[in-house]
Amino acid sequence: MKKTPGPDGVLASPGRRSLLKAGLAAGGLVATGGFSRASEVNPDNLPPNVADWSRYLGAGVDAAPYGMPSEHEAHVVRRSVEWLTASRESSVNFTPLHELDGIITPNGLCFERHHSGVADMNPTDFRLMINGLVETPLVFTLEDLKRFPRENRIYFLECAANSGMEWRGAQLNGCQFTHGMVHCVMYTGVPLKYLLEEAGVKTNARWVMPEGGDSAGMNRSIPLEKALDDCMVAFKMNGEALRPEQGYPARLVVPGWEGNMWVKWLRRIEVGDEPWHAREETSKYTDLLENGKARRFTWVMDTKSVITNPSPQAPLLHSRGQTVLSGLAWSGNGRITRVDVTTDGGRNWHQARIDGPSLPKALHRFYYEFDWDGSPLLLQSRAYDDAGYVQPTKNELRAARGTNSIYHNNGIQTWEVKADGSVENVEIS
Amino acid sequence: MKKTPGPDGVLASPGRRSLLKAGLAAGGLVATGGFSRASEVNPDNLPPNVADWSRYLGAGVDAAPYGMPSEHEAHVVRRSVEWLTASRESSVNFTPLHELDGIITPNGLCFERHHSGVADMNPTDFRLMINGLVETPLVFTLEDLKRFPRENRIYFLECAANSGMEWRGAQLNGCQFTHGMVHCVMYTGVPLKYLLEEAGVKTNARWVMPEGGDSAGMNRSIPLEKALDDCMVAFKMNGEALRPEQGYPARLVVPGWEGNMWVKWLRRIEVGDEPWHAREETSKYTDLLENGKARRFTWVMDTKSVITNPSPQAPLLHSRGQTVLSGLAWSGNGRITRVDVTTDGGRNWHQARIDGPSLPKALHRFYYEFDWDGSPLLLQSRAYDDAGYVQPTKNELRAARGTNSIYHNNGIQTWEVKADGSVENVEIS
Repeated sequence: MKKTPGPDGVLASPGRRSLLKAGLAAGGLVATGGFSRASEVNPDNLPPNVADWSRYLGAGVDAAPYGMPSEHEAHVVRRSVEWLTASRESSVNFTPLHELDGIITPNGLCFERHHSGVADMNPTDFRLMINGLVETPLVFTLEDLKRFPRENRIYFLECAANSGMEWRGAQLNGCQFTHGMVHCVMYTGVPLKYLLEEAGVKTNARWVMPEGGDSAGMNRSIPLEKALDDCMVAFKMNGEALRPEQGYPARLVVPGWEGNMWVKWLRRIEVGDEPWHAREETSKYTDLLENGKARRFTWVMDTKSVITNPSPQAPLLHSRGQTVLSGLAWSGNGRITRVDVTTDGGRNWHQARIDGPSLPKALHRFYYEFDWDGSPLLLQSRAYDDAGYVQPTKNELRAARGTNSIYHNNGIQTWEVKADGSVENVEIS
Repeated sequence: MKKTPGPDGVLASPGRRSLLKAGLAAGGLVATGGFSRASEVNPDNLPPNVADWSRYLGAGVDAAPYGMPSEHEAHVVRRSVEWLTASRESSVNFTPLHELDGIITPNGLCFERHHSGVADMNPTDFRLMINGLVETPLVFTLEDLKRFPRENRIYFLECAANSGMEWRGAQLNGCQFTHGMVHCVMYTGVPLKYLLEEAGVKTNARWVMPEGGDSAGMNRSIPLEKALDDCMVAFKMNGEALRPEQGYPARLVVPGWEGNMWVKWLRRIEVGDEPWHAREETSKYTDLLENGKARRFTWVMDTKSVITNPSPQAPLLHSRGQTVLSGLAWSGNGRITRVDVTTDGGRNWHQARIDGPSLPKALHRFYYEFDWDGSPLLLQSRAYDDAGYVQPTKNELRAARGTNSIYHNNGIQTWEVKADGSVENVEIS
């Protein structure tokens, strides 16, 4: 085997700051900006001369009929917060945004939010009824649904409570916890309008109410106009069957609108002439204002962005030189047209580079490449969408809605990068 | 709980034809074209009145830090063929295309092809050396790579041998086996040109040779022009780290070109002035013609398509009425512009509906909705790309290249649908 010498591998091992600096010094990485010449490596500090993986046969093709991530990625998981909720069945876990890139969330890492745990629905007993103000109440099996024209769309799904704990100031130290109730996958399903047309919507119909088959019987009122626009009954995500925690075998997709309207384990869709004022749109998922009144039916997830790298769980591992800042932006209104970033707390803003597909109501990935001089940084990102909305500051949101709110916090997030590369969640006025 | 009655659920359980017909009769689905009125269900034939999943709490949010598919999807796996190769380490398994939809392949189901098994590479010991005709030979750690500008692209990856066993006629009964050596994911990585520019490519350089860290030391010669065009060193797929079987922690991405050039567990890239004529581009991955000469350096994967549903592993489960035909098309030259399908062995062709993102060198999903009268069908699809290429018939390929070939079979595939809905792999002249 050809030798591939280089500095000690701890560069790839987060958190080990002292070893890192040793490695940097040994490899002379500081001097060359981070890339060691094959001729100037530290001979006392090499990886195995001939690694085992280059000497021995590896696992064969029948070792993993359904593949899993490397054991070296065991730290890349959804995480929950014990103290956040009274039970684990009506709770959330969070997508590890700081470990991901691009705009697709792998199915195994899509955050979960349940109201009575994961319904283990049997697909052969799945039924979807459409009733209420329709000419012919219908019942569809899963196979029935697959006989209607399908579409494939990449959409983000964000919980209305994402970033909710930040209303009263910086609380959680990591974008997984401050912004991790969002994911983005490709859905395959049937446009809801085809199913409603099959049943025949009556002329006085104005609303639909999707209902879940879980023991919470999760339901929400949705205007008929939205139901006939871009809603889908989806049965696949990222090509394969929906995951159990995402509503297997079928869920409603309500593009751009808050996640709890995307009813999982879909059982019934009632058509009516007025909203139902269900529990989850009255006692919850409303925004209590300072004057005691509550905003209701606040469906759209507004223009938002967050810097995922660097962030508290993903410190900078080099001490200066060329650096890549990365993040996500999204809007329930449509496409993201621009993202600006600052490294000095807002004194100077730079337009970030959006890379990858730019699709309506989907995550957008942005990057800002810069030469870090090793001094502390105050990082922020600000997103713009094609409906003309600009992401507000947290203080602008508080001025408008007070501090009773939990939901719909799309305020600008600040990370403080210290000289040693570590990162903290902070607020600046 | 609201009752959601309907016919017996066996419609969702493939293969149980007799039960299926009983279910159809009981639910009167034939008469209504497949969708039962809530008023006309068979009361002897209902799913559980109140299902357990609607009565009891399900699993909480810390049950699965990394999620997995439903146990009801246990049949959706990569499958290998024992007799195909002498060893399991130098072999292949196949993507279950008939169980998927959209254009994204979930990471756990991306087919595998190894020459010495899965190299279990430690990311902290990963090194990528660039040497040969460069001004400064360099060695990059994984963290070094993440300091260069990244891009995110959705590309298909197809093994040159995909459909190879069909050269001599219909052999394998299922698109998983005839066409399952293809997958399509979103890659995140560094354009190779940035790394080559960092090392400084000398003026007489014409080729590069990526080399793998597996014990096969897999290597291939690639023209410098391609390396500087759209090749990437990728470290993420569908948002998360590359899977071990896909080259963790880093692989080369060679858009539109045959899969074995996408060197996994990337260890070294040598720059040279002529091709290396390595083992895998001389004794293998060449196309032996009738006259004894072999086509070499046949890199591009040509315009191709296949109907994934219905197909031998995915029979039609209804006896007539509205039906969705679905399939995949792709081209190493660029975008798919059109797909035609026939249900009568080529007497009549219909333009299929392409749905979802249309991206260069990526899978495209097509659908054709039709009203099945229950009689036998001969299904074919024919793809066109934006470079003007049209997918050929298998006989056109044989006339041009004879029958010694294994690689680069992009011929039109035929499925025969019988009156009972079952499907077979057949050939028609």
